[in-house]
Amino acid sequence: MNKSVESNKQVLNHVINLERLMETFEVSNKVGQIDETGVRRLALTKEDKIMRDMFTIWLEKAGLEVRVDDFGNIYGRREGLRNDLAPVMTGSHLDTQPYGGRYDGILGVLSGLEAIRALNDNNVETLRPIEVVVWTNEEGNRFAPPTPSGSGGMTDNFTKEEIYESIDADGHTFREELEKIGYLGDMINRPEEIHSYVELHIEQAPVLDRENISIGIVNGDRGFNIIEVTVKGETGHSSGPPMEVRKDALLKASEVIVTIHEIIKEHKSAMITIGKMNVAPGHNSHIPDNVNFIVQIAHDEEIVLNHIIETIKDTSTVLVEKDGLEIELDVRVAFPRAHFSERIVKEIEAVTQDFGYSTLHMLSGGGHDANNIASIAPTAMIFIPCKDGISHNVKEFASEEEIEKGANVLLNTVLNLAQQEDNLE
Amino acid sequence: MNKSVESNKQVLNHVINLERLMETFEVSNKVGQIDETGVRRLALTKEDKIMRDMFTIWLEKAGLEVRVDDFGNIYGRREGLRNDLAPVMTGSHLDTQPYGGRYDGILGVLSGLEAIRALNDNNVETLRPIEVVVWTNEEGNRFAPPTPSGSGGMTDNFTKEEIYESIDADGHTFREELEKIGYLGDMINRPEEIHSYVELHIEQAPVLDRENISIGIVNGDRGFNIIEVTVKGETGHSSGPPMEVRKDALLKASEVIVTIHEIIKEHKSAMITIGKMNVAPGHNSHIPDNVNFIVQIAHDEEIVLNHIIETIKDTSTVLVEKDGLEIELDVRVAFPRAHFSERIVKEIEAVTQDFGYSTLHMLSGGGHDANNIASIAPTAMIFIPCKDGISHNVKEFASEEEIEKGANVLLNTVLNLAQQEDNLE
Repeated sequence: MNKSVESNKQVLNHVINLERLMETFEVSNKVGQIDETGVRRLALTKEDKIMRDMFTIWLEKAGLEVRVDDFGNIYGRREGLRNDLAPVMTGSHLDTQPYGGRYDGILGVLSGLEAIRALNDNNVETLRPIEVVVWTNEEGNRFAPPTPSGSGGMTDNFTKEEIYESIDADGHTFREELEKIGYLGDMINRPEEIHSYVELHIEQAPVLDRENISIGIVNGDRGFNIIEVTVKGETGHSSGPPMEVRKDALLKASEVIVTIHEIIKEHKSAMITIGKMNVAPGHNSHIPDNVNFIVQIAHDEEIVLNHIIETIKDTSTVLVEKDGLEIELDVRVAFPRAHFSERIVKEIEAVTQDFGYSTLHMLSGGGHDANNIASIAPTAMIFIPCKDGISHNVKEFASEEEIEKGANVLLNTVLNLAQQEDNLE
Repeated sequence: MNKSVESNKQVLNHVINLERLMETFEVSNKVGQIDETGVRRLALTKEDKIMRDMFTIWLEKAGLEVRVDDFGNIYGRREGLRNDLAPVMTGSHLDTQPYGGRYDGILGVLSGLEAIRALNDNNVETLRPIEVVVWTNEEGNRFAPPTPSGSGGMTDNFTKEEIYESIDADGHTFREELEKIGYLGDMINRPEEIHSYVELHIEQAPVLDRENISIGIVNGDRGFNIIEVTVKGETGHSSGPPMEVRKDALLKASEVIVTIHEIIKEHKSAMITIGKMNVAPGHNSHIPDNVNFIVQIAHDEEIVLNHIIETIKDTSTVLVEKDGLEIELDVRVAFPRAHFSERIVKEIEAVTQDFGYSTLHMLSGGGHDANNIASIAPTAMIFIPCKDGISHNVKEFASEEEIEKGANVLLNTVLNLAQQEDNLE
């Protein structure tokens, strides 16, 4: 084989094989398919196992050496000329939301594999090894508490106990289920050091789609907090207590929700989502005495975010307690604001310029695996447009044209990083 | 036996045997007991069957002839001197809410039995027969749609198909379960004609308790409507759509709930309870696109109630649609305003005067079996205080002293009615 090492200064842009990439998508779409366009592939289920087994075969067929770590993260390694150097890493996750789409996470993994295949096609040898990685349970949907287990565990952002003992609705632990599907690997298989990490993902917001831009260059993640709010009142029969003496927890929770949104309006770039709510006792003819809801809240600047959270706590407490009810607001998870690597961002920028793709610098707000990796290695993300910003939904859609562009940018960014002898900062 | 027929003009007030009545309560409390003071006895369950079997034995021991109709309603008949005359009927229900108390419904049935026992003790013979009745599934909690099946079916306020085909969470029909516990009786056992119906019940509101009054003389039921409201928006990832373009169904539903309560405030005596809510898709990181909640609403005057419902519909629709979301408001059940019999109310009044008990005329708002019976026969209810108005709850409490007074009033009202030769209007 006539392998050539290309230096960073003499970039010839390589391109991926779109047809081949879409064929791997076709297979992935079938594993846990729901409706016509959706995928339900919860972490560590039968479907997840099938997809992992399939993907492992593809990695091996592409000549990669596969290893699995103690969180079930799968690494496929393509050796470089200097295997003493830390690898460039790319990947994402293969698990989905319960009623999810076919691109979220999956794009990053399949494009990583496609990048390797494209390098193989062109007999390109790199200085550094390249590793394609599948992180376990990024969606954090099946097990409680909800953690992005694979990347979160590997980076020690969550303890092994927290992850292993997280539990699904049927009482099965993460560890049991990981072992059951045959993906309880060894801690020794975690990467020792990572030179750089790049993740390709759909945007999950409508900005690129609306502005007709092909590549989002992601400078960081806004991070977000998950707050659990409980409003406690007094129950009673619907024909019982007169209106003026009631302590109706749902009415009060509704006032709190309206108020929280008014606070948010005053802070540009703040985003809030209340996606989950439970009303107890939950009968037609009972005044609710316990309403519990989950607030997910983000802002570009951590200091502002904390200020907003304090304002919400203070305002809600006054609102609720003035009528003799009680409120608890507990920050359950605080995903930190992630700052991505300027050096990698510049690499991505250079590649998109060479291709002539339209770009936009942006922040992510999704809590991706990249956020975890950013805490231990230089990291950045590449976004492609996602139709109408609809994601975590069977309607999730990214066009082949944009997928091709994204995969091309990933391929060349990874390639350029893998040719660098120096460490990034 | 030296039986004496007492005329309406020569009332000697009889009294019940409180100790004996409380002994039957003790037994009832054990059947489906939860916590220390609660009862969970859902309609047509094993617990309901045990209680029915027990109660039937008590009826027979008191010399009553027992029959069961096609809805499982149990009638215990004490013959009178003129069995060609329509019976006076008293009773209530033995089923409870899932996390219910020991008095709701049960008081009316056990006091009815105690009234018969007291008449037996005193060898009192009546002109008309007296029937003690247990209505099936008054709570309407186990089966959907929620109907007070026994009294609703017997009075043709609900069709036999509606009731028989109503279904529980496990997919079992009312008819299957009724047959399974051995209480699928014959249609011929329904009463042909009812002279008068009196039901003793705890108030389920705090008025009597707060004002320290022993007997509520119930002139009618306010009736109530059950409205199902659905707000439809658009889902999306929490880090996706910017706040200003979102169509968040939960935020909008919260605004609707706050607005509905503002409308209610303008109408004295209107009562509203929103006890049940479902938020979909129901994940932390998804904007809700479908929020469904149940509104139970009552007002003393039907015309005002209808006006309020129209106002709620109009105002909510404008509020929701101005931001491009959708709303559906459907009246699922309309329990009519029940007007009780003036003649029976006067009988109750006379008895309470003789005893010197404190009384208050009031409307009920609970949708009792009496509401159904009122549509085919002269009916009224007697209320006793219920501590703090807490009902449908293990904390539900009525004192022995007030139970005794209530049962005494029931006994003598039933007795006086049973001595009347003429029909009521």
